[in-house]
Amino acid sequence: MGVFEDLTGSFSKLPGIGKKSAIRIVNWLLKQDKMYVQRFAQNLSVLQDKIKPCSICGAWTEADPCPICSNPLRENNVICVVEQSQDVATIEAYGEFKGQYHVLGGLIKPLEGIGPSQLGIASLLARLKDGQVQEVIVATNPTIEGDTTALYLNKVIKEQSDIKVTRLATGIPVGGDLEYIDKRTLSLSFRGRNTF
Amino acid sequence: MGVFEDLTGSFSKLPGIGKKSAIRIVNWLLKQDKMYVQRFAQNLSVLQDKIKPCSICGAWTEADPCPICSNPLRENNVICVVEQSQDVATIEAYGEFKGQYHVLGGLIKPLEGIGPSQLGIASLLARLKDGQVQEVIVATNPTIEGDTTALYLNKVIKEQSDIKVTRLATGIPVGGDLEYIDKRTLSLSFRGRNTF
Repeated sequence: MGVFEDLTGSFSKLPGIGKKSAIRIVNWLLKQDKMYVQRFAQNLSVLQDKIKPCSICGAWTEADPCPICSNPLRENNVICVVEQSQDVATIEAYGEFKGQYHVLGGLIKPLEGIGPSQLGIASLLARLKDGQVQEVIVATNPTIEGDTTALYLNKVIKEQSDIKVTRLATGIPVGGDLEYIDKRTLSLSFRGRNTF
Repeated sequence: MGVFEDLTGSFSKLPGIGKKSAIRIVNWLLKQDKMYVQRFAQNLSVLQDKIKPCSICGAWTEADPCPICSNPLRENNVICVVEQSQDVATIEAYGEFKGQYHVLGGLIKPLEGIGPSQLGIASLLARLKDGQVQEVIVATNPTIEGDTTALYLNKVIKEQSDIKVTRLATGIPVGGDLEYIDKRTLSLSFRGRNTF
């Protein structure tokens, strides 16, 4: 198999890229600046060696502990628990949360054989033992797996401490339209209604 | 800048990939098999050295001349002219054309300053001089630029020879619906109508 077919095959395995897009990308790459392509290849080849999970929070990082865990200016009494490393970037981009993070690396999915032991839950419980943390904000997505994992976390944290466990609000997104909102979101937005 | 940001930047430059998809891809790559990522990086790094335009037809190829130009079983009395290398793969996939190809590497676009001299037109005219080719099929897309380029090719080929110059039929695609077809396609499908 030639370089073209082999590289097209590698690109088409990436999430969101099909066979046709992969061919288009490789054809496009052939016409690009050599420096750009070489730097691209170089970074790709060192990626997995340079980036490892943070030994504290589990987020992907080049430096261990990660820049957030090693930042003395972050609040250390609150931990936001997320499904994956990307979620940390999403919440950081919004910029208002100043606490710590903990990455689970997945959600409890009994049908796929993923249980609590395969996720970063033991390491989270260990982090909660020194008594500094007063609140754990569970920021998993409002899906069945996200809800299951949140309930499980609440249970195991409550078993070992009296730390407050909260969950991001579910409701109608800003700019959303009642007409197009699903029943479950509407039901949860009623239950979670606020007084003025 | 770290490897993560740098690689995300490289991915987001690719056609059809935005910033968010790039982040998603790099996060995904971190969890993949090391062999796959290393092979991906290796192929990417040698791509531009190994793949060059064929000295006869201009299509990207690892071997020069390309497998089509060097295949003695292909008909050598007909040349199909296409805009880009990918179009050769598309026509080959359909599998009924058995002649030669010629890749222009673009279309005449006066507004972007691309004229005939920047395209593989001189090399096409040179190929037509030995008298073997009896027909040139212009397979540029039925767009303004594709039409302009086709008309120009017809003119310059006719100036130097009496080789037949044809163009792929424009009309209603199979499975198409008259109701949703644009006026120009409909007009061209009337003009190009066939007898039973």
